[in-house]
Amino acid sequence: MARKNIEDVRNVTCIGAGPIGGGWAAFFLSKGYDVTSYIHDQAEEEPLRRMIDTAWKCLEQIGLTEGASLDRLRCTTDLADAVKDADFIQESVPEILPLKQGIYEQLGTLAPVDVIIASSTSGMSMTDIQINCATPERTVVAHPFNPPYLLPLVEMIGGKKTDPEAVKWAAKFYTYTGKAPLVMTKEVPGFVATRIQEAIWREALHMVENGEATPEQIDIAMVNGPGPRWAFGGPFMTYHIGGGEGGMAYCLDQFAPALKLPWTRLEAPEMTSDLRNTLVDDCDDRAKGRTFSELSEERDAGLVAVAQAWKKLGKLT
Amino acid sequence: MARKNIEDVRNVTCIGAGPIGGGWAAFFLSKGYDVTSYIHDQAEEEPLRRMIDTAWKCLEQIGLTEGASLDRLRCTTDLADAVKDADFIQESVPEILPLKQGIYEQLGTLAPVDVIIASSTSGMSMTDIQINCATPERTVVAHPFNPPYLLPLVEMIGGKKTDPEAVKWAAKFYTYTGKAPLVMTKEVPGFVATRIQEAIWREALHMVENGEATPEQIDIAMVNGPGPRWAFGGPFMTYHIGGGEGGMAYCLDQFAPALKLPWTRLEAPEMTSDLRNTLVDDCDDRAKGRTFSELSEERDAGLVAVAQAWKKLGKLT
Repeated sequence: MARKNIEDVRNVTCIGAGPIGGGWAAFFLSKGYDVTSYIHDQAEEEPLRRMIDTAWKCLEQIGLTEGASLDRLRCTTDLADAVKDADFIQESVPEILPLKQGIYEQLGTLAPVDVIIASSTSGMSMTDIQINCATPERTVVAHPFNPPYLLPLVEMIGGKKTDPEAVKWAAKFYTYTGKAPLVMTKEVPGFVATRIQEAIWREALHMVENGEATPEQIDIAMVNGPGPRWAFGGPFMTYHIGGGEGGMAYCLDQFAPALKLPWTRLEAPEMTSDLRNTLVDDCDDRAKGRTFSELSEERDAGLVAVAQAWKKLGKLT
Repeated sequence: MARKNIEDVRNVTCIGAGPIGGGWAAFFLSKGYDVTSYIHDQAEEEPLRRMIDTAWKCLEQIGLTEGASLDRLRCTTDLADAVKDADFIQESVPEILPLKQGIYEQLGTLAPVDVIIASSTSGMSMTDIQINCATPERTVVAHPFNPPYLLPLVEMIGGKKTDPEAVKWAAKFYTYTGKAPLVMTKEVPGFVATRIQEAIWREALHMVENGEATPEQIDIAMVNGPGPRWAFGGPFMTYHIGGGEGGMAYCLDQFAPALKLPWTRLEAPEMTSDLRNTLVDDCDDRAKGRTFSELSEERDAGLVAVAQAWKKLGKLT
């Protein structure tokens, strides 16, 4: 299937007028696209536009692409009309499988056959969603993180009938727009980010349940401790820097025995030498020759930015 | 025991010249204190001063207290001399129990008896550390988060022989200096923040071990997804906002069944109505009447700050 050049995408159709659909519309508008929002009822237009106006204030501060304008948003209740000129479709209807399946059945014939259809679903597989779609090869899961106009993550995977090239095209398109696509190779429930969130959430619930900490104390610990570091580097890179000159290797060789400590209710995997080497090599590759002191200066620059923002904005506690 | 007024503290003694001891010294200097660093060997002075110089660049950007100066740092290899004029002592020697016990045995008689001695230990209990200390009532655990000159968290708890008033005084002092003390009521291994980190770390290791995601993918997910939110609000407040107008109550009533889903390898506690109400009440109290839209604007302002910092500084991936 010959697909459009990424750079030639002009019209993006966003299906759904909730916080995710509206957030995507705001994002694509900020990047200078013509956006058509499909709403299933005319009454949704006004709250949708209000939501986008609010998001716009943030997007202006981050910087709009030249030519970006709220005037380039069009709303319609006609699905055929919404997708007929689309170069890319982002679907964000409610998480009800029959509803999604019905929409993909219609889109399968209504949308130009070379156009990618991406679903914001957080919990369903494209294999299930595409079941009644006549052209399933161009349908992909592309799960954003709320709010989608501010957070770059898009977790992606195809369904059984999806052409892997369609996933690649969409990932390239998201990257082009400034998003951070994460293409999974296995369908794991919760993808990556939600699993991370759930691990913390469950540990936090256990602590509250056992009277070890209040929700407020847990929030205080997060915001003033690990949270700011994770805004700039993930857990692996954070430990790589935490290991000092020795990096991840030092960290693992020193602290792997701590995996046996009861520092969470989650059971740890065995730290085999294979697992150890995978982690060490991955971090070393990404450090791209930067020294410990360069990496920790980068980390600190991020933390300074957060501290400055705290001074100006406060914290949510 | 009559203790000094918080506002009258002038001299802070930092024991230990590693990244934690040095980080504390930089922090207290930036707040305008006279700082005495105890080093156990004269050769440690030069690397310690270099570390503090590096931290200083960050601290200047956040803003120094009037009168703060690097000239107010004094180093000594004489423990008695280091603590004789101290108004507060922050101990950060290596995590070796007999070493800590030995230091507290000496400090117990060397340090003025009304002065609080706080240990940066991340894993030992004050009950064990204070075992040979003649004046254990003023010894507390005060575990910072690395780097201590940038991250505000200080997790605190006393030992069996600690006077609860000593913990209170130290918490008040840390708050006065701009830190975020978290006073625990139970000695839980890993306190709060390390348990949170461990939960994520173990889930991440499982994902890598199972070939579900690479370390880089996990870091990408964190930095571009949940991380930036956690720099400004903890997991509970984040879900409270995620619940929209309905807040935490909506969130829990809607998503509690998801606790049964295999979204992490950590087993979830039962969502009893007691647990539910604890969470809901805690978030409602802290929202202090702010509406969903006000709270989400605050969250977004934080995310904008992170996005602006990303543009300027990049991310650690």
